[in-house]
Amino acid sequence: MFRIGIDVGGTGIQAGVIDDSFRILAEESIPTRTSDPFADQVARIAGCVKSVAAKAGLTMEQIVSIGIGIPGIANAATGEIIKCTNMGWYHVPFRNEFMKHTSIPVFIDNDANVAALAESVAGVSADSSSSVFVTIGTGIGSGIILNGRIWSGFHGIGGELGHVIFDLDGVPCTCGNKGCLERYCSATALIRMAREAISLHPETLMMKMISGDVSRLEARTVIDAARQSDPLASEVYAQYIDQLAQAFANIVNFLDPEVIVIGGGVSKAGNFLLDPLRREFPKYVIYNDQPMPEIKLAILGSEAGIIGAAMLS
Amino acid sequence: MFRIGIDVGGTGIQAGVIDDSFRILAEESIPTRTSDPFADQVARIAGCVKSVAAKAGLTMEQIVSIGIGIPGIANAATGEIIKCTNMGWYHVPFRNEFMKHTSIPVFIDNDANVAALAESVAGVSADSSSSVFVTIGTGIGSGIILNGRIWSGFHGIGGELGHVIFDLDGVPCTCGNKGCLERYCSATALIRMAREAISLHPETLMMKMISGDVSRLEARTVIDAARQSDPLASEVYAQYIDQLAQAFANIVNFLDPEVIVIGGGVSKAGNFLLDPLRREFPKYVIYNDQPMPEIKLAILGSEAGIIGAAMLS
Repeated sequence: MFRIGIDVGGTGIQAGVIDDSFRILAEESIPTRTSDPFADQVARIAGCVKSVAAKAGLTMEQIVSIGIGIPGIANAATGEIIKCTNMGWYHVPFRNEFMKHTSIPVFIDNDANVAALAESVAGVSADSSSSVFVTIGTGIGSGIILNGRIWSGFHGIGGELGHVIFDLDGVPCTCGNKGCLERYCSATALIRMAREAISLHPETLMMKMISGDVSRLEARTVIDAARQSDPLASEVYAQYIDQLAQAFANIVNFLDPEVIVIGGGVSKAGNFLLDPLRREFPKYVIYNDQPMPEIKLAILGSEAGIIGAAMLS
Repeated sequence: MFRIGIDVGGTGIQAGVIDDSFRILAEESIPTRTSDPFADQVARIAGCVKSVAAKAGLTMEQIVSIGIGIPGIANAATGEIIKCTNMGWYHVPFRNEFMKHTSIPVFIDNDANVAALAESVAGVSADSSSSVFVTIGTGIGSGIILNGRIWSGFHGIGGELGHVIFDLDGVPCTCGNKGCLERYCSATALIRMAREAISLHPETLMMKMISGDVSRLEARTVIDAARQSDPLASEVYAQYIDQLAQAFANIVNFLDPEVIVIGGGVSKAGNFLLDPLRREFPKYVIYNDQPMPEIKLAILGSEAGIIGAAMLS
C-alpha cells in the first residue's frame, strides 16, 4: 500500500509518497502562496500530490490515503481547518475542497500531532502504545499518542503544552497570558535567560562567539558555550535544564505516557540535552520510586511531517 | 448482574453491592485497623464482602466482580498495591492475598480514579467518553477517563494533577517540591491565602465568624464570608478562583476532555464555585473561540467510592 503525506508550512509545502515500511519513495515541494485564493491553494496542493505520485511511478489508484499536517488546528472529524495563522486559513472546509480533486480518503491534523504519530509508527517511539512528543523550538509544541492514536482532545484543542501555566503571574506570553510553559522551556526562553545573564556579566565566552552583538545570540550559542564549560553559559543552561525537567515531570505526573520524545531545534543538542534532563526530571515526579517514562530524542527529523501525515487515518 | 465495590480509607472501609442500574442494594462497613498484619486486614475485608452480599440477599455466586479503591497507587494489571501510606501498605500483593478468600475476579485502583469512573458511568459525566475528575479538598486529586476507561498512565503513576508544577520556585509543598498546583488550588491553599490576608487586614467578617481564632479558619469560612460580600473574603476568593481557573485551563490546553468534574469538600460551594470558574477559565484557554470542555459538579458524593470500585474491570 502507498500513502501520500503533505507537510504544509508557511514557506513551503512538501508532499511525499511512502510505502508500508514508511520509506519515502518520492518527494515534491511547492512554495506556499498565502496570497492566492483558498481554492487555488488547495488546487496547487492537489497538483503537487498528483505529480509526486507520478514521480514514484504510481497511478492515483494505487494511493490508499492522503494526509495533511498543518501548523494550526483542524477538526479531524469534519476535515475543517479551524485556525492556521501562517496560511491565513480560518474556518476553511479543507477536506471538502480537496475532495473536488480526488476521491481518495483525505485526513488532516495539526503538525505536532503528525510528528508525534510519525515517531510512534516509524520512529523512536515505534514500540510504544502511548507517547508525548514535545517539540522545542521558537515555542513549545506537543502531540499526544494514546493507544496508538493521536489524542488531540475531545474538541481538538488539546496538546497545547506550550501554553499550560507553569509560573503563576510569570513572564508575559505572546498569547496574552502570563507564565506559559514555553516562556521557560523554548529556545526563545533560553535566549532570553542568556541575554539577562549577559547584561549582568558580559565577561563570557558567549560574547566572543557573537562578537559582542547580543542580537546575534542563539540557543546554539548558549549550548555551545556551556559545552565548552563557560561558567555563565553553564549556569544559564543548568537553570534551563531544571525548568525543562519540571515541565517533563509535569507530563509524567499528569499523563504518564510510556515514552516522551523530544524534537525541534533544541533537540539537536543531543546527549548534552538528554543526559542532564534524564538525570534531573525524576526528582519532580511524585512516584519516582516507580518505573517511569523514558525520554528519547526524535529520529525522523524533517521526514516526520510527511510520514506522520501519510499515516493519518 | 451484581458487583461489589469497596472504598478503603484510613479510618473505615465501606463495602456495597450494586446492581446494573448502579443502585447500592446494601452497605456494610468496618473500622480500619492499620496495626493488624496485612493478611488479617485482607481477611477482614473479605469477611465484610461476604456479609454485605448476604445483607443484599445474594449468594457469592451471584457476584460477578469485586473492586477496591485505595488512597494510594496500585498496579491495576498485577493487583499489587505499590504505596498506600494511610494503610501502611507498601508493595503488597493485594489481589493475590484477597483471592485466597474468593474465586470472583478482583480489581483494584486509586480512589480518585475510582471516583472519576463512578461519575463517568453513573454520575454527572455519564454521557461523555472522556473526562477529568478533580477532587478539591485538603489536597488536589484527579482521575482521567479516556474512551470510557480509567487512564492512570502507562506505569500507573499519572493523574497526579495536584503535584504538577504550577508556580516555578513557588510555595513549598509537602512532597518536597515547590510550586505544586495543590498549594494554590486546594482547600488548604484557600485557608493559607485567607490567613495571610487576615494578618494584614484583621477587620473582616471572617474574624467574627471564627471568634478571632485564626486556627479555626476553614475553607468554608472564607466561602461563607465571600457569599456575604465581606470585602477581604471576596478578594481572597476571587484570587483563589483565578488560580483554579488557570489550573482548569491547563487541563483543557493539554488534554481537552469532554467534561471536567469537580468533587471534594470545596465543591460543596456549588454554584458559588461553579459560576465564576466557568466564567474565568476560558480566558486562559488558547483556542477559546472553539467549543470547550464543560465544567460540572460531581453528583454521587460518598457513594462514588463504592460505585466506582464496583465498576472496575
